[in-house]
Amino acid sequence: MAKYVIGVDLGGTKILTALANLQGEIVAKDRLSTEAEQGKKKVIDRILTTIDQVLTKSNLTKKEIEAIAIGSPGPLNVEEGIIYQAPNLGWKNVNLKQVLESKLDIPVFVENDANAAALGAKWFGVGQNKDNLIYLTISTGIGSGIIIDGKLYHGASDSSGEVGHMVIEANSDIKCNCGDYGCWEAIASGTALGRLAREKINSGSSSLMKELVDSVEEIDGKIVTQAAAQGDKVAQKVLQRVINYLGTGISNLINILNPEIIVIGGGVSQAGDMVLEPIRDIALKRAMETPAKEVEIVPTQLGDDIGVIGAVTKALIELEILH
Amino acid sequence: MAKYVIGVDLGGTKILTALANLQGEIVAKDRLSTEAEQGKKKVIDRILTTIDQVLTKSNLTKKEIEAIAIGSPGPLNVEEGIIYQAPNLGWKNVNLKQVLESKLDIPVFVENDANAAALGAKWFGVGQNKDNLIYLTISTGIGSGIIIDGKLYHGASDSSGEVGHMVIEANSDIKCNCGDYGCWEAIASGTALGRLAREKINSGSSSLMKELVDSVEEIDGKIVTQAAAQGDKVAQKVLQRVINYLGTGISNLINILNPEIIVIGGGVSQAGDMVLEPIRDIALKRAMETPAKEVEIVPTQLGDDIGVIGAVTKALIELEILH
Repeated sequence: MAKYVIGVDLGGTKILTALANLQGEIVAKDRLSTEAEQGKKKVIDRILTTIDQVLTKSNLTKKEIEAIAIGSPGPLNVEEGIIYQAPNLGWKNVNLKQVLESKLDIPVFVENDANAAALGAKWFGVGQNKDNLIYLTISTGIGSGIIIDGKLYHGASDSSGEVGHMVIEANSDIKCNCGDYGCWEAIASGTALGRLAREKINSGSSSLMKELVDSVEEIDGKIVTQAAAQGDKVAQKVLQRVINYLGTGISNLINILNPEIIVIGGGVSQAGDMVLEPIRDIALKRAMETPAKEVEIVPTQLGDDIGVIGAVTKALIELEILH
Repeated sequence: MAKYVIGVDLGGTKILTALANLQGEIVAKDRLSTEAEQGKKKVIDRILTTIDQVLTKSNLTKKEIEAIAIGSPGPLNVEEGIIYQAPNLGWKNVNLKQVLESKLDIPVFVENDANAAALGAKWFGVGQNKDNLIYLTISTGIGSGIIIDGKLYHGASDSSGEVGHMVIEANSDIKCNCGDYGCWEAIASGTALGRLAREKINSGSSSLMKELVDSVEEIDGKIVTQAAAQGDKVAQKVLQRVINYLGTGISNLINILNPEIIVIGGGVSQAGDMVLEPIRDIALKRAMETPAKEVEIVPTQLGDDIGVIGAVTKALIELEILH
């Protein structure tokens, strides 16, 4: 009897689930909105629904599933499978491993979502054959997963890679969601991009961006990038500022970790060369010569699937099929 | 016949050499000025002199030495033992391993100095039993060695841990020796402390610091710390600023690497609690809660010997006596 694994990418807005064979080839996928506002039980039911769905779609039963791995927001405890806190889900201290194992009778593993994506990049993405890799997700926030000497680096308490809270403007008055000021994600994420643009427009700058939305509040990173591509000066200026910060933060990671490759995922990875090229230029210019010479900075080729492919990878590693 | 190793801490101003048994216990030490300005050959002769000296002092011969390890400034190539560049020594592309092996007929290993110190901290210092450790040296510059899951992390090209060039003031106009602006060591090292104090005094601030030196140019980090301890307001203000930056940079390392322990060496480690306490407070306040809960921030207990003890440790690891 052939064996399989299931990977689940548990996000604040959607659950993406895939069933794969032991070579990591995806056999079936399912996608459901998370409905986090309906509470923990409902979200867990929806995870279970997606698992049922991928089994049905592939004509398999639970008995053929060797392991399930979940990429989840954190902080969390990988060993025990407890999500300590996930603001996007409204969760605190949820033992996801225990809950799912008791319902499914299949071994369940939990991993931080950016860490899972890093595994996906290393084993099935642009990071193959790379032993020192940083997966960087730049969207509404900035997070990372770090592969060191071929293995995922968890740190002392499963919270390594919180690069979004690296301070790069020590005296900034821009407050981050974490409570601190000048954090990278407060000044360089998609959220920061939208905020900066709205500030410009609210202070009277005329811009194409206003015509792309019904109200100024709708201006987000995507709108700014779109307007910049269409030649809007205000959007270009704001984008340039965020690009500078992104490049600077990446240069810090290059200097600290001397990685072979930095794989970029999240919204930025879809913005194309107009954004990625200048980020790369600034990062390599600001970094020290020796580590700058070594590093590739590339967008993930796995698109939105990187999280679920990463969860599948996590399951295969736990089964010691991948080393 | 009992066997021994030799460790050499090769610095810009001094060479510190120790002979140790295979338990890492130091049997003899020697210290010589580097005389870097007299050229490469002279420096290598002086290294050889210290090696002769420790052999003589311990009544041993070369035959009883299993390995020699050198902690050297870099960037360098660990595998080949080549120092690519060491501005303090005036060296470029020196194959230190080859030169010393041909003269001594003993296996020679080369390691980045901060990396060697990290090994010393882990095996013989305050970092014992810690698998995830950062050794941070804060003196005229800022450097680090990173231990990940019990092993020294070299990065893709032996240049990981360049934390002194992490930018923490992205829009700063303070230029670093590396050519970039706003690097941690440009705004938070002992050098930065002296520079800030001299600027204050040159712009007319009255301060006890002037009385502690013959000319303003002599004001360095040590003088500032001394004046601050004696209640000088200008020194205290300047010191507070640098302490803020030091704490902020350390919080970044905590967020990125989630270490169990950060061991602080260099000039700052000798400044005592007046400086270390507030650095620790700021670092833990700015870092995320989960990694901040986990980390100890402590001065090295090995003083100036940490480099040479680290070099001895490197030799013992290469001999596979330590794992």
